[in-house]
Amino acid sequence: MAWPKRVRITEVGPRDGFQSIEPWIDTGLKISSVRRLFDAGADAVEVCSFVSPRAIPQMRDAPEIAAALAGTEELERAVALVPNRKGAELAAGAGMKNIAVVISASADHNMSNVRKTPGQSLEELRGIRSWHPELNVKLDIATAFGCPFKGAVSLDEIRFVLEPALEMGIDDICLCDTIGVASPALVREVVGSLMERYSESGIDWAVHFHNTRGLAAANTVAALELGLDRFETAFAGLGGCPFAPGASGNMATEDLIYLLDELGIGHGLNLDKILELSESFVAATGCCRDSKIDRVTRNKVFKQEEK
Amino acid sequence: MAWPKRVRITEVGPRDGFQSIEPWIDTGLKISSVRRLFDAGADAVEVCSFVSPRAIPQMRDAPEIAAALAGTEELERAVALVPNRKGAELAAGAGMKNIAVVISASADHNMSNVRKTPGQSLEELRGIRSWHPELNVKLDIATAFGCPFKGAVSLDEIRFVLEPALEMGIDDICLCDTIGVASPALVREVVGSLMERYSESGIDWAVHFHNTRGLAAANTVAALELGLDRFETAFAGLGGCPFAPGASGNMATEDLIYLLDELGIGHGLNLDKILELSESFVAATGCCRDSKIDRVTRNKVFKQEEK
Repeated sequence: MAWPKRVRITEVGPRDGFQSIEPWIDTGLKISSVRRLFDAGADAVEVCSFVSPRAIPQMRDAPEIAAALAGTEELERAVALVPNRKGAELAAGAGMKNIAVVISASADHNMSNVRKTPGQSLEELRGIRSWHPELNVKLDIATAFGCPFKGAVSLDEIRFVLEPALEMGIDDICLCDTIGVASPALVREVVGSLMERYSESGIDWAVHFHNTRGLAAANTVAALELGLDRFETAFAGLGGCPFAPGASGNMATEDLIYLLDELGIGHGLNLDKILELSESFVAATGCCRDSKIDRVTRNKVFKQEEK
Repeated sequence: MAWPKRVRITEVGPRDGFQSIEPWIDTGLKISSVRRLFDAGADAVEVCSFVSPRAIPQMRDAPEIAAALAGTEELERAVALVPNRKGAELAAGAGMKNIAVVISASADHNMSNVRKTPGQSLEELRGIRSWHPELNVKLDIATAFGCPFKGAVSLDEIRFVLEPALEMGIDDICLCDTIGVASPALVREVVGSLMERYSESGIDWAVHFHNTRGLAAANTVAALELGLDRFETAFAGLGGCPFAPGASGNMATEDLIYLLDELGIGHGLNLDKILELSESFVAATGCCRDSKIDRVTRNKVFKQEEK
């Protein structure tokens, strides 16, 4: 029950959030959102995806977003998601240094997502490693807590993806609750088992929770209790997966900050700046905000004392 | 970390929920809602408040609701909230057998709520006990996790209300997070300390969480981990406190059921019936629903397996 003293937050709004928004978001607004997230203190930001513009039209300006980061200190902490080797080529060509490769533990979901078996996706990953050894790779294991098509996902299915990645020298691993079906019991079972089994492997674990069924905060506490200290969230609770029916928003970054503050756990993010970004982004785009923390509720936490 | 095998759920929608709804709710709809909640398996239902109709006009049909329960088996599990001795008189006169008396640990909130100090409210409680020894009394300690006016509330302030009640033989105690500022850390501190300190007192503890800042589920898990096994929630996440600025809905009963099901903890409630009630009530009244679990998300949890 020893919570970490400090956690790292990867902001995924510009990738996992924006990709699920259909109306076009101005490239300038995307770039300014990324800059504001770095300025607010995000440990890392997923800034775009190098995917087929036919599959996800919203991500078609990924090269421009990468170009806007060229030569900045933030580039070192900017991550581009890629579904395959071609995406990695494009990301490297655009000057990105960090990529996230997503492979689903569920073969059904991986097939729906990238039309490959997990084994074929692992071959892509091997290709990426040999052709672009200069890229830092995070492996996102999607549907680690359940799949929209097949239901429960076993530890063996996760390990089928995880172990070859470890052999390729990838120790930056994120377990993704793609459709928001994790519970505190399942977090203990899945994350707890994996952290224990691979305790000697030097894996830097992260988790990525969606709040579809209202348990993201409870799941976060369960992960913190296991000593996990890296979380992926999206400002304003944006997000979902365009290929996962029933998925809804990521855990909101502002809700995670509020929770961590209440638990006395450090994070380095400025809540005011995140709230300002969420408010202005939602106002500019008309997107839904799925967060319980806004300026009103935040200011009503005991702020009356100051009157 | 041993969760209880089974918990009891007190449904507070018809009281804590309805009282915060301004447009008049038809008495027949109130009565049918209460009946449906009992039919769905609620351990107890807070069915109304005997309060001044000027203070809370929505509760002015409390006698008719009590009359509808006369002679039924459900009356044994129906609770009426009362703020003072006059309310208790009215509840007893209307045939109610169980009352909830609410006293705030925060003097500021108690003054705002009933225009009495906590000490004066305790005197009312003493009067209720001596004039109506036949009534079963639950004590709701409001603002146990924080007050909208003064901020933090100390354990001593809670104990100032709790100990005289224990001396009056009241061991049915609910700690209420009136404005939704509890966190898992605060639950451990407040509930954990009190459960330990009064472990010999035979207190039947309950907690009452609001989801104002999104932590109700995480707080519920923290309470379960302490062995607490009685929770108050409202169908559709209705609720709030008309005298607590910034308060919003109770934890939704359907969200609690989903959480308990995922944790493998029994509760005796029928989720389908609660979802049907929430859907029809919201459709009939135009009230907002503040719940993450509805037929859609529930049915998407692994139900694809059945196809």
